[in-house]
Amino acid sequence: MLARILAPARKRALTLQYLLNTSTTTTLNKHTPPSYQLHNMSIAAAAAAQQGHMHASAEKVLRMTSTVAAMTPTVDVTNVNPNAREAKYAVRGEIVAKAYEYAADIASGKGSNLPFDRVVYCNIGNPQQLGQKPVSFFRQVLALCDYPDVLDNPKVEELYPADAVARARRYLAAIPGGVGAYSQSKGVALLRQEVAAAIEKRDGHPCSPDDLFLTDGASPTCHYLMKTLLRNKSDGVLTPMPQYPLYSATLELYDGSLVPYYLAEEKGWGMDVNHLKECVDKARAEGTVVRAMVVINPGNPTGQVLDEADQRAVVQFCKQENLLLVADEVYQDNVYREGKKFTSFKKIVRDLGSEYADFPLISMHSVSKGFYGECGRRAGYMEVIGINDEVKDIFLKLASVSLCSNISGQICMALVMNPPKPGEPSYELYEREKNDVLGSLKRRAVRLTSALDSLDGVSCNPAEGALYAFPRLYLPDKFCAEAKKIGREPDMHYCMKMLDATGVVTVPGSGFGQVPGTHHFRTTFLPSEQDIETVITNITTFHNNLMKEYS
Amino acid sequence: MLARILAPARKRALTLQYLLNTSTTTTLNKHTPPSYQLHNMSIAAAAAAQQGHMHASAEKVLRMTSTVAAMTPTVDVTNVNPNAREAKYAVRGEIVAKAYEYAADIASGKGSNLPFDRVVYCNIGNPQQLGQKPVSFFRQVLALCDYPDVLDNPKVEELYPADAVARARRYLAAIPGGVGAYSQSKGVALLRQEVAAAIEKRDGHPCSPDDLFLTDGASPTCHYLMKTLLRNKSDGVLTPMPQYPLYSATLELYDGSLVPYYLAEEKGWGMDVNHLKECVDKARAEGTVVRAMVVINPGNPTGQVLDEADQRAVVQFCKQENLLLVADEVYQDNVYREGKKFTSFKKIVRDLGSEYADFPLISMHSVSKGFYGECGRRAGYMEVIGINDEVKDIFLKLASVSLCSNISGQICMALVMNPPKPGEPSYELYEREKNDVLGSLKRRAVRLTSALDSLDGVSCNPAEGALYAFPRLYLPDKFCAEAKKIGREPDMHYCMKMLDATGVVTVPGSGFGQVPGTHHFRTTFLPSEQDIETVITNITTFHNNLMKEYS
Repeated sequence: MLARILAPARKRALTLQYLLNTSTTTTLNKHTPPSYQLHNMSIAAAAAAQQGHMHASAEKVLRMTSTVAAMTPTVDVTNVNPNAREAKYAVRGEIVAKAYEYAADIASGKGSNLPFDRVVYCNIGNPQQLGQKPVSFFRQVLALCDYPDVLDNPKVEELYPADAVARARRYLAAIPGGVGAYSQSKGVALLRQEVAAAIEKRDGHPCSPDDLFLTDGASPTCHYLMKTLLRNKSDGVLTPMPQYPLYSATLELYDGSLVPYYLAEEKGWGMDVNHLKECVDKARAEGTVVRAMVVINPGNPTGQVLDEADQRAVVQFCKQENLLLVADEVYQDNVYREGKKFTSFKKIVRDLGSEYADFPLISMHSVSKGFYGECGRRAGYMEVIGINDEVKDIFLKLASVSLCSNISGQICMALVMNPPKPGEPSYELYEREKNDVLGSLKRRAVRLTSALDSLDGVSCNPAEGALYAFPRLYLPDKFCAEAKKIGREPDMHYCMKMLDATGVVTVPGSGFGQVPGTHHFRTTFLPSEQDIETVITNITTFHNNLMKEYS
Repeated sequence: MLARILAPARKRALTLQYLLNTSTTTTLNKHTPPSYQLHNMSIAAAAAAQQGHMHASAEKVLRMTSTVAAMTPTVDVTNVNPNAREAKYAVRGEIVAKAYEYAADIASGKGSNLPFDRVVYCNIGNPQQLGQKPVSFFRQVLALCDYPDVLDNPKVEELYPADAVARARRYLAAIPGGVGAYSQSKGVALLRQEVAAAIEKRDGHPCSPDDLFLTDGASPTCHYLMKTLLRNKSDGVLTPMPQYPLYSATLELYDGSLVPYYLAEEKGWGMDVNHLKECVDKARAEGTVVRAMVVINPGNPTGQVLDEADQRAVVQFCKQENLLLVADEVYQDNVYREGKKFTSFKKIVRDLGSEYADFPLISMHSVSKGFYGECGRRAGYMEVIGINDEVKDIFLKLASVSLCSNISGQICMALVMNPPKPGEPSYELYEREKNDVLGSLKRRAVRLTSALDSLDGVSCNPAEGALYAFPRLYLPDKFCAEAKKIGREPDMHYCMKMLDATGVVTVPGSGFGQVPGTHHFRTTFLPSEQDIETVITNITTFHNNLMKEYS
């Protein structure tokens, strides 16, 4: 397909070169998309003109490219932004596209020859898709805010509990125009106050609503941040390997450089400050201006929960190296391992005292994970501290260009941070729903990671937190050679074959970054406790067959 | 504040220059943010190193800048992305910030000395904030989808009409995981099918659900588009003046060039293809590669509704000049003028026949405007035709990086396109609500534009559509001189003074673009019919006093 598109463009470019009588030094060959070259000539000429160095040849190129402009395809893959073209986002790529095809075939009855009768999406932390029930209280309040007319119906409390009714009334009284109106760009003032109060309670340190932005999830935060921070390819961000590919994708989109640091798989995906220092020094020696460090805690895809001592070391390292710390803390409610607990980087920074008062930190949270799993809401917050007002005003302006985040999502974020309290009518149900989900996730985490770890040719760290197992694969040489032959990463090949054999959708480790030469995949442990047994059985059979076939 | 930040940075830069023994040719002066210079040195050195031309001096710069890195502020206004810093978004700027202060003062009782007792936000098309009621049926379905447990309650139809219950059941059956789960990146299949069917009905031409992306409103569409289309500053987009500043802001953010074309105020903000051609030729002669043309129809801030003949001329012009047409059609349900009607550019293109089968068009719609005004939902769609799959896959990837748009918003977009039908229980109420809002908007449009047009020193075209009046101001020289003295655009000065005197929040024409030397402001006609009389009275008094004071 690409070849078909490029052929005519190349022809035009060659015509142009002929017309120009080879006035440029660029060599055209069939491997170089010619519209780049055309375009580069045009740019060079334009730049020359702007700098007042317009030469006869540049003028000629300009005139020619203007004429040729009308002949090239308006928009095709050769003349789009290269960062947009090259960015990768593994969580939804080729495998997911194929999974949708299988699911469509099954739905339409065409899938009867498949070796599975349904597709199980373990590629993405999307709990409700796999049957997790939403928190009732949150949904009751959201429903009442959506259609407030029922608040005045005398029968409302026959369908909704009194505290949900009261909460909806309180929110609506404070949201000018209700959920259908744009709010302030940062979010509704009352909802930010509630989130701030909850952060204060969580950390034991003050939190100002002015430092909070209610967002459409962690993704927009990352866009605002990268757009603001990155000036060009020489600006880099220290990013964990493996990482959630939102970071690699936005670094590519906004033309920055990913400066990798590796988590130590053999130490339970632990962090080593000496290694961080080596990574920064190496990047600087190569000319990269390292601007920030991303930490995902609990880890995605790796599931580790950092100890406070490690967190302090990270903060001290960032201060010493003058890095903005970006704390992705969207799994803060997902900690399963005994003796482990989540501590926010905000608390770590504030505990370090006045010397760290100006320490720059952006921390992110989301309604998508935890025990609430409200992915479809698209909502989260970012807290910005230690960053001066001019820069915060740039974040605000970027948020303003999209006007505001969705109001139901803002409400949901406030509900997550300010749930029913002891004594309120919905408290017991809320606690039960929360503990049921977290208890079950914990059992599933243990069950899945130990089952994977027990396979020949697989090792898997326990998942201390988050929603994922990230097992390492020791794949037979014959399998790797086959993958290489068809131009696929071995773990991509493995995940594709797993989908074909089992209907289980996973993501290859190469999509997250891994130590070169190692292979992994990521799977959620979100299927229900019943379903996860089937998933384990199917993966086990698939894996053992594969090992036998290729060894 | 800036000076305070720059001073130490400059000192460090000078120290560096001293240490380097003036090894660069860059001249430092107090007007150049020194971190740029540091950074440029570092970039130059890095580039030299990458090209294998590492010289001793470049190595030295590299080492020095690495050391100095730890001394410069981590993130401040001098070392962020210049496009992010410079982008402007007038709809929420200085005036709105001041309006929020006034509103807060009034709320807290500190505003008793103000000459008004409330702030009226006419700066933004935010109908529900100003009291417009949402469409009941839409909200009922959304509420039921939020908390589906009530669907099984025998009393549900005492609170919600039967067709809302049925619609919610149907949507939930087709949305895997409900409103709390991520959908496919393009949006839920069934909802895209409903939107596609409605577009087919509107235009009388086929629409494929595959060509539709359900988005978080028109803003993300514009981000995807600009990110994909623009390779660098030499890529330009033909943009109306005046325009909705989403276009100028995203063009700046993604480092493209705005190629202005002016709407003819004296011809009711009409379009002139000869003028378009002049603008494109001029831009090309200056080295800009013009890639696309934006048309906002009905116009924002200008309110004109294009005739089909003009639309055809635009499409033919884009084909001739090889431009992607971007049709912002978010006001398609807001047409007031007798004899005018909205026709989509999709219909125009398809009516032109097979010669235009590959014509590239992106059209955008939104739930935020019309008679529904669901701004706080953040939802819309884009339809992409005539663009090949590789490029559509890039849009899809960009959408995937944010996973999906919010599901309640997706449902709302489907509801807007597929409302209750004759014979269904909610049809009558829906029709009444729709006609009430549109009838009232029409009366308010006429009332406001004619009142403004009748003022001395103001002329105002009728608003044929959309939600805005965009009157031209003929300001006294003395007033313009005063504005100049304080470094403000005259219309900015006017709008600020209007806010101070009346509490009415408007946006200066300079935020939208206007013929140099002319002055305008934009105001919505969204205050209720009662409130708009007060707004008119207050603006009239303010304006007449100002004209008297400065003439």
